[in-house]
Amino acid sequence: MERTQSRPRQGLVILYTGKGKGKTTAALGLVLRAWGHGMRCCVVQFIKSERGRWGERLAAQRLGIAWHTLGAGFTWRSQDLAQDRRKAEEGWALAQAEIAGGGYDIVVLDEFTYPLHFGWLDPHAVVGWLQANKPPELHLVITGRDAVDELVAYADLVTEMTEVKHPFQQGVAAQRGIEF
Amino acid sequence: MERTQSRPRQGLVILYTGKGKGKTTAALGLVLRAWGHGMRCCVVQFIKSERGRWGERLAAQRLGIAWHTLGAGFTWRSQDLAQDRRKAEEGWALAQAEIAGGGYDIVVLDEFTYPLHFGWLDPHAVVGWLQANKPPELHLVITGRDAVDELVAYADLVTEMTEVKHPFQQGVAAQRGIEF
Repeated sequence: MERTQSRPRQGLVILYTGKGKGKTTAALGLVLRAWGHGMRCCVVQFIKSERGRWGERLAAQRLGIAWHTLGAGFTWRSQDLAQDRRKAEEGWALAQAEIAGGGYDIVVLDEFTYPLHFGWLDPHAVVGWLQANKPPELHLVITGRDAVDELVAYADLVTEMTEVKHPFQQGVAAQRGIEF
Repeated sequence: MERTQSRPRQGLVILYTGKGKGKTTAALGLVLRAWGHGMRCCVVQFIKSERGRWGERLAAQRLGIAWHTLGAGFTWRSQDLAQDRRKAEEGWALAQAEIAGGGYDIVVLDEFTYPLHFGWLDPHAVVGWLQANKPPELHLVITGRDAVDELVAYADLVTEMTEVKHPFQQGVAAQRGIEF
Protein backbone atom coordinates (compact mmCIF):
# COMPACT_ATOMS: atom_id res chain seq x y z
CA MET A 1 0.00 0.00 0.00
CA GLU A 2 1.31 3.39 -0.96
CA ARG A 3 2.10 5.75 1.87
CA THR A 4 0.48 9.16 1.72
CA GLN A 5 3.19 11.78 1.73
CA SER A 6 2.70 14.76 3.98
CA ARG A 7 2.15 17.69 1.63
CA PRO A 8 4.64 20.52 2.14
CA ARG A 9 3.15 23.86 2.99
CA GLN A 10 2.76 26.24 0.10
CA GLY A 11 3.12 29.87 1.07
CA LEU A 12 0.31 31.96 -0.34
CA VAL A 13 0.51 35.57 -1.46
CA ILE A 14 -2.71 37.23 -0.33
CA LEU A 15 -3.80 40.70 -1.38
CA TYR A 16 -6.64 42.61 0.29
CA THR A 17 -7.41 45.71 -1.75
CA GLY A 18 -10.30 48.04 -2.67
CA LYS A 19 -11.80 51.10 -1.02
CA GLY A 20 -13.93 49.29 1.58
CA LYS A 21 -13.19 48.68 5.24
CA GLY A 22 -11.69 45.40 6.39
CA LYS A 23 -8.37 45.10 4.56
CA THR A 24 -5.98 45.58 7.47
CA THR A 25 -8.58 43.95 9.70
CA ALA A 26 -8.63 40.79 7.57
CA ALA A 27 -4.82 40.70 7.64
CA LEU A 28 -5.02 40.84 11.44
CA GLY A 29 -7.49 37.98 11.39
CA LEU A 30 -5.02 35.88 9.39
CA VAL A 31 -2.35 36.72 11.94
CA LEU A 32 -4.62 35.62 14.78
CA ARG A 33 -5.48 32.37 12.99
CA ALA A 34 -1.82 31.64 12.24
CA TRP A 35 -0.85 32.50 15.82
CA GLY A 36 -3.47 30.01 16.98
CA HIS A 37 -1.54 27.35 15.06
CA GLY A 38 1.69 28.40 16.77
CA MET A 39 3.07 30.08 13.65
CA ARG A 40 5.55 32.95 13.82
CA CYS A 41 4.07 36.24 12.62
CA CYS A 42 5.48 39.60 11.58
CA VAL A 43 3.66 42.81 10.61
CA VAL A 44 5.29 45.76 8.84
CA GLN A 45 3.07 48.86 8.63
CA PHE A 46 3.96 51.22 5.81
CA ILE A 47 1.60 53.98 6.93
CA LYS A 48 1.63 55.47 10.37
CA SER A 49 -2.02 55.73 11.32
CA GLU A 50 -3.21 58.93 12.94
CA ARG A 51 -4.84 56.84 15.62
CA GLY A 52 -1.77 54.74 16.21
CA ARG A 53 -3.55 51.42 15.73
CA TRP A 54 -3.19 50.82 19.44
CA GLY A 55 -5.63 47.94 19.57
CA GLU A 56 -3.59 45.76 17.26
CA ARG A 57 -0.24 46.94 18.57
CA LEU A 58 -1.18 46.13 22.15
CA ALA A 59 -2.53 42.76 21.05
CA ALA A 60 0.62 42.00 19.05
CA GLN A 61 2.81 42.87 22.00
CA ARG A 62 0.88 40.55 24.29
CA LEU A 63 0.94 37.77 21.69
CA GLY A 64 4.64 38.03 20.87
CA ILE A 65 4.05 39.09 17.28
CA ALA A 66 6.81 41.16 15.68
CA TRP A 67 5.44 44.60 14.78
CA HIS A 68 7.14 47.39 12.88
CA THR A 69 5.62 50.80 12.24
CA LEU A 70 7.66 52.81 9.81
CA GLY A 71 8.71 56.40 10.34
CA ALA A 72 7.80 58.23 13.50
CA GLY A 73 5.48 60.96 12.34
CA PHE A 74 5.99 59.91 8.75
CA THR A 75 3.09 60.43 6.39
CA TRP A 76 2.98 59.75 2.67
CA ARG A 77 2.68 62.50 0.08
CA SER A 78 4.70 65.01 2.01
CA GLN A 79 5.98 68.07 0.19
CA ASP A 80 9.35 66.35 0.00
CA LEU A 81 9.45 63.71 -2.74
CA ALA A 82 13.04 62.70 -2.01
CA GLN A 83 12.15 62.04 1.62
CA ASP A 84 9.11 59.97 0.62
CA ARG A 85 11.27 57.81 -1.62
CA ARG A 86 13.94 57.40 1.02
CA LYS A 87 11.40 56.37 3.68
CA ALA A 88 9.76 53.93 1.27
CA GLU A 89 13.13 52.39 0.48
CA GLU A 90 14.00 52.07 4.17
CA GLY A 91 10.68 50.35 4.81
CA TRP A 92 11.12 48.02 1.88
CA ALA A 93 14.65 47.12 3.04
CA LEU A 94 13.23 46.17 6.45
CA ALA A 95 10.46 44.14 4.81
CA GLN A 96 13.01 42.34 2.62
CA ALA A 97 15.09 41.43 5.67
CA GLU A 98 12.06 40.07 7.55
CA ILE A 99 10.78 38.14 4.53
CA ALA A 100 14.08 36.59 3.49
CA GLY A 101 15.75 36.09 6.85
CA GLY A 102 13.27 36.58 9.67
CA GLY A 103 12.27 32.94 10.01
CA TYR A 104 8.56 33.82 10.01
CA ASP A 105 5.64 31.75 8.81
CA ILE A 106 3.56 34.77 7.86
CA VAL A 107 4.56 38.35 7.07
CA VAL A 108 2.02 41.16 6.62
CA LEU A 109 2.98 44.25 4.62
CA ASP A 110 0.20 46.60 5.70
CA GLU A 111 -0.66 49.46 3.33
CA PHE A 112 2.19 48.39 1.09
CA THR A 113 0.20 49.16 -2.06
CA TYR A 114 0.70 52.91 -1.59
CA PRO A 115 4.48 53.26 -2.12
CA LEU A 116 4.04 51.18 -5.28
CA HIS A 117 1.00 53.14 -6.47
CA PHE A 118 2.70 56.48 -5.85
CA GLY A 119 5.86 55.28 -7.57
CA TRP A 120 8.23 55.57 -4.58
CA LEU A 121 9.11 51.94 -5.25
CA ASP A 122 9.31 50.22 -8.64
CA PRO A 123 6.59 47.50 -8.82
CA HIS A 124 8.55 45.42 -11.31
CA ALA A 125 11.66 45.38 -9.09
CA VAL A 126 9.62 44.64 -5.95
CA VAL A 127 7.73 41.70 -7.47
CA GLY A 128 10.93 40.41 -9.09
CA TRP A 129 12.66 40.42 -5.72
CA LEU A 130 9.74 38.63 -4.06
CA GLN A 131 9.64 35.96 -6.77
CA ALA A 132 13.35 35.31 -6.28
CA ASN A 133 13.64 35.64 -2.51
CA LYS A 134 10.38 34.90 -0.68
CA PRO A 135 10.77 31.51 1.03
CA PRO A 136 8.33 29.14 -0.75
CA GLU A 137 6.55 28.19 2.49
CA LEU A 138 6.15 31.79 3.77
CA HIS A 139 2.65 33.30 3.62
CA LEU A 140 2.78 36.93 2.52
CA VAL A 141 -0.18 39.28 3.07
CA ILE A 142 -0.35 42.72 1.45
CA THR A 143 -3.06 45.31 2.10
CA GLY A 144 -4.06 48.70 0.72
CA ARG A 145 -6.08 50.47 -1.93
CA ASP A 146 -5.05 50.88 -5.56
CA ALA A 147 -2.97 47.73 -5.91
CA VAL A 148 -0.82 48.00 -9.03
CA ASP A 149 -1.29 45.39 -11.78
CA GLU A 150 2.08 43.74 -11.07
CA LEU A 151 0.96 42.99 -7.52
CA VAL A 152 -2.43 41.59 -8.57
CA ALA A 153 -0.70 39.37 -11.13
CA TYR A 154 1.78 38.12 -8.52
CA ALA A 155 -0.75 37.37 -5.76
CA ASP A 156 -2.41 33.98 -5.40
CA LEU A 157 -5.52 35.28 -3.67
CA VAL A 158 -6.96 38.73 -4.29
CA THR A 159 -10.04 40.06 -2.52
CA GLU A 160 -11.46 43.47 -3.25
CA MET A 161 -13.26 45.13 -0.36
CA THR A 162 -16.06 47.41 -1.56
CA GLU A 163 -17.75 49.95 0.65
CA VAL A 164 -21.50 49.41 0.60
CA LYS A 165 -22.31 51.56 3.62
CA HIS A 166 -20.07 53.47 6.00
CA PRO A 167 -21.05 54.91 9.38
CA PHE A 168 -18.96 58.07 8.86
CA GLN A 169 -21.46 58.91 6.12
CA GLN A 170 -24.00 59.02 8.92
CA GLY A 171 -21.88 61.14 11.24
CA VAL A 172 -20.75 58.34 13.54
CA ALA A 173 -17.27 58.85 15.00
CA ALA A 174 -14.50 56.26 14.70
CA GLN A 175 -14.85 53.77 17.54
CA ARG A 176 -12.06 52.40 19.71
CA GLY A 177 -11.66 48.65 19.26
CA ILE A 178 -13.24 48.80 15.83
CA GLU A 179 -11.46 51.42 13.75
CA PHE A 180 -8.22 51.46 15.72
CA MET B 1 -15.38 77.84 28.50
CA GLU B 2 -17.51 74.82 27.68
CA ARG B 3 -16.19 71.51 28.89
CA THR B 4 -15.85 68.80 26.26
CA GLN B 5 -17.91 65.84 27.31
CA SER B 6 -16.40 62.42 26.99
CA ARG B 7 -18.30 60.83 24.14
CA PRO B 8 -20.04 57.58 25.07
CA ARG B 9 -19.15 54.62 22.93
CA GLN B 10 -21.56 53.90 20.14
CA GLY B 11 -21.85 50.25 19.32
CA LEU B 12 -21.56 49.64 15.60
CA VAL B 13 -23.31 46.98 13.57
CA ILE B 14 -20.78 45.73 11.03
CA LEU B 15 -21.61 43.42 8.15
CA TYR B 16 -18.98 41.63 6.04
CA THR B 17 -20.69 40.02 3.08
CA GLY B 18 -20.01 39.05 -0.56
CA LYS B 19 -18.51 35.97 -2.19
CA GLY B 20 -14.83 36.86 -1.65
CA LYS B 21 -12.47 35.59 1.02
CA GLY B 22 -11.85 37.59 4.18
CA LYS B 23 -15.26 37.95 5.84
CA THR B 24 -14.74 35.72 8.87
CA THR B 25 -11.08 36.70 8.80
CA ALA B 26 -11.93 40.39 9.09
CA ALA B 27 -14.30 39.64 11.98
CA LEU B 28 -11.39 37.85 13.69
CA GLY B 29 -9.23 40.90 13.11
CA LEU B 30 -11.84 43.07 14.85
CA VAL B 31 -11.84 40.62 17.75
CA LEU B 32 -8.04 40.80 18.00
CA ARG B 33 -8.11 44.63 17.89
CA ALA B 34 -10.84 44.79 20.55
CA TRP B 35 -9.00 42.23 22.69
CA GLY B 36 -5.92 44.45 22.45
CA HIS B 37 -7.99 47.19 24.07
CA GLY B 38 -9.03 44.82 26.85
CA MET B 39 -12.58 44.45 25.55
CA ARG B 40 -14.68 41.35 26.20
CA CYS B 41 -15.34 39.35 23.04
CA CYS B 42 -17.74 36.58 22.05
CA VAL B 43 -17.99 34.62 18.80
CA VAL B 44 -20.99 32.50 17.78
CA GLN B 45 -20.40 30.39 14.67
CA PHE B 46 -23.56 29.40 12.84
CA ILE B 47 -21.81 27.04 10.43
CA LYS B 48 -19.61 24.22 11.52
CA SER B 49 -16.64 24.33 9.20
CA GLU B 50 -15.39 21.06 7.72
CA ARG B 51 -11.91 22.03 8.78
CA GLY B 52 -12.99 22.94 12.29
CA ARG B 53 -11.48 26.43 12.21
CA TRP B 54 -8.84 25.22 14.64
CA GLY B 55 -6.54 28.19 14.18
CA GLU B 56 -9.07 30.68 15.50
CA ARG B 57 -10.51 28.32 18.10
CA LEU B 58 -7.09 27.64 19.59
CA ALA B 59 -6.30 31.35 19.53
CA ALA B 60 -9.63 32.22 21.18
CA GLN B 61 -9.04 29.66 23.91
CA ARG B 62 -5.61 31.08 24.69
CA LEU B 63 -6.98 34.64 24.64
CA GLY B 64 -9.99 33.99 26.85
CA ILE B 65 -12.49 34.79 24.11
CA ALA B 66 -15.89 33.11 24.41
CA TRP B 67 -16.42 30.84 21.42
CA HIS B 68 -19.52 28.88 20.47
CA THR B 69 -19.77 26.54 17.52
CA LEU B 70 -23.30 25.43 16.88
CA GLY B 71 -24.35 21.87 16.34
CA ALA B 72 -21.81 19.06 16.40
CA GLY B 73 -21.82 17.71 12.90
CA PHE B 74 -24.57 20.10 11.97
CA THR B 75 -24.61 21.34 8.39
CA TRP B 76 -27.14 23.60 6.74
CA ARG B 77 -29.44 22.43 3.98
CA SER B 78 -29.87 18.98 5.31
CA GLN B 79 -32.69 16.83 3.97
CA ASP B 80 -34.60 17.68 7.12
CA LEU B 81 -36.10 21.17 6.98
CA ALA B 82 -37.64 20.94 10.46
CA GLN B 83 -34.25 20.08 11.93
CA ASP B 84 -32.59 23.00 10.10
CA ARG B 85 -35.14 25.40 11.52
CA ARG B 86 -34.82 24.00 15.01
CA LYS B 87 -31.02 24.27 14.94
CA ALA B 88 -31.20 27.81 13.60
CA GLU B 89 -33.61 28.76 16.37
CA GLU B 90 -31.36 27.21 19.01
CA GLY B 91 -28.40 29.15 17.67
CA TRP B 92 -30.34 32.38 17.54
CA ALA B 93 -31.54 31.88 21.13
CA LEU B 94 -27.92 31.47 22.24
CA ALA B 95 -26.90 34.57 20.27
CA GLN B 96 -29.76 36.54 21.85
CA ALA B 97 -28.64 35.53 25.33
CA GLU B 98 -25.03 36.54 24.65
CA ILE B 99 -26.01 39.84 23.04
CA ALA B 100 -28.56 40.93 25.64
CA GLY B 101 -27.02 39.51 28.78
CA GLY B 102 -23.46 38.37 28.17
CA GLY B 103 -21.79 41.61 29.22
CA TYR B 104 -19.61 41.63 26.09
CA ASP B 105 -18.16 44.62 24.25
CA ILE B 106 -18.20 42.86 20.90
CA VAL B 107 -20.21 39.89 19.65
CA VAL B 108 -19.53 38.19 16.30
CA LEU B 109 -22.30 36.17 14.62
CA ASP B 110 -20.23 34.29 12.08
CA GLU B 111 -22.06 33.04 8.96
CA PHE B 112 -25.30 34.34 10.40
CA THR B 113 -26.51 35.52 6.99
CA TYR B 114 -27.29 31.96 5.95
CA PRO B 115 -30.17 31.06 8.29
CA LEU B 116 -31.77 34.37 7.29
CA HIS B 117 -31.14 33.87 3.58
CA PHE B 118 -32.50 30.31 3.66
CA GLY B 119 -35.52 31.42 5.64
CA TRP B 120 -34.89 29.34 8.77
CA LEU B 121 -35.17 32.59 10.72
CA ASP B 122 -37.41 35.55 9.91
CA PRO B 123 -35.23 38.57 9.01
CA HIS B 124 -37.87 41.06 10.12
CA ALA B 125 -38.20 39.44 13.55
CA VAL B 126 -34.42 39.12 13.98
CA VAL B 127 -33.70 42.75 13.12
CA GLY B 128 -36.62 43.91 15.22
CA TRP B 129 -35.28 42.01 18.21
CA LEU B 130 -31.78 43.47 17.69
CA GLN B 131 -33.15 47.00 17.44
CA ALA B 132 -35.01 46.56 20.71
CA ASN B 133 -32.47 44.54 22.68
CA LYS B 134 -28.88 45.06 21.54
CA PRO B 135 -27.13 47.17 24.20
CA PRO B 136 -26.36 50.55 22.54
CA GLU B 137 -22.64 50.31 23.30
CA LEU B 138 -22.22 46.71 22.06
CA HIS B 139 -20.43 46.21 18.74
CA LEU B 140 -22.11 43.53 16.66
CA VAL B 141 -20.34 41.89 13.72
CA ILE B 142 -22.17 39.66 11.23
CA THR B 143 -20.52 37.71 8.42
CA GLY B 144 -21.63 35.60 5.47
CA ARG B 145 -22.70 35.69 1.84
CA ASP B 146 -26.10 36.74 0.58
CA ALA B 147 -27.03 39.17 3.34
CA VAL B 148 -30.76 39.85 3.23
CA ASP B 149 -31.92 43.44 2.65
CA GLU B 150 -33.18 43.83 6.22
CA LEU B 151 -29.68 43.13 7.54
CA VAL B 152 -27.99 45.56 5.12
CA ALA B 153 -30.50 48.27 6.09
CA TYR B 154 -29.91 47.64 9.80
CA ALA B 155 -26.08 47.61 9.65
CA ASP B 156 -24.00 50.75 10.13
CA LEU B 157 -21.03 49.54 8.12
CA VAL B 158 -21.31 47.11 5.22
CA THR B 159 -18.34 45.85 3.25
CA GLU B 160 -18.71 43.52 0.31
CA MET B 161 -15.78 41.19 -0.29
CA THR B 162 -15.38 40.35 -3.98
CA GLU B 163 -13.22 37.54 -5.24
CA VAL B 164 -10.73 38.82 -7.78
CA LYS B 165 -8.47 35.80 -7.82
CA HIS B 166 -8.54 32.60 -5.81
CA PRO B 167 -5.73 30.05 -5.46
CA PHE B 168 -8.13 27.08 -5.59
CA GLN B 169 -8.72 28.11 -9.20
CA GLN B 170 -5.06 27.31 -9.69
CA GLY B 171 -5.17 23.96 -7.91
CA VAL B 172 -3.60 25.11 -4.65
CA ALA B 173 -4.84 23.27 -1.57
CA ALA B 174 -6.26 25.05 1.48
CA GLN B 175 -3.41 26.05 3.76
CA ARG B 176 -3.29 25.66 7.53
CA GLY B 177 -3.05 29.03 9.26
CA ILE B 178 -4.63 30.78 6.28
CA GLU B 179 -7.86 29.04 5.38
CA PHE B 180 -8.49 27.39 8.74
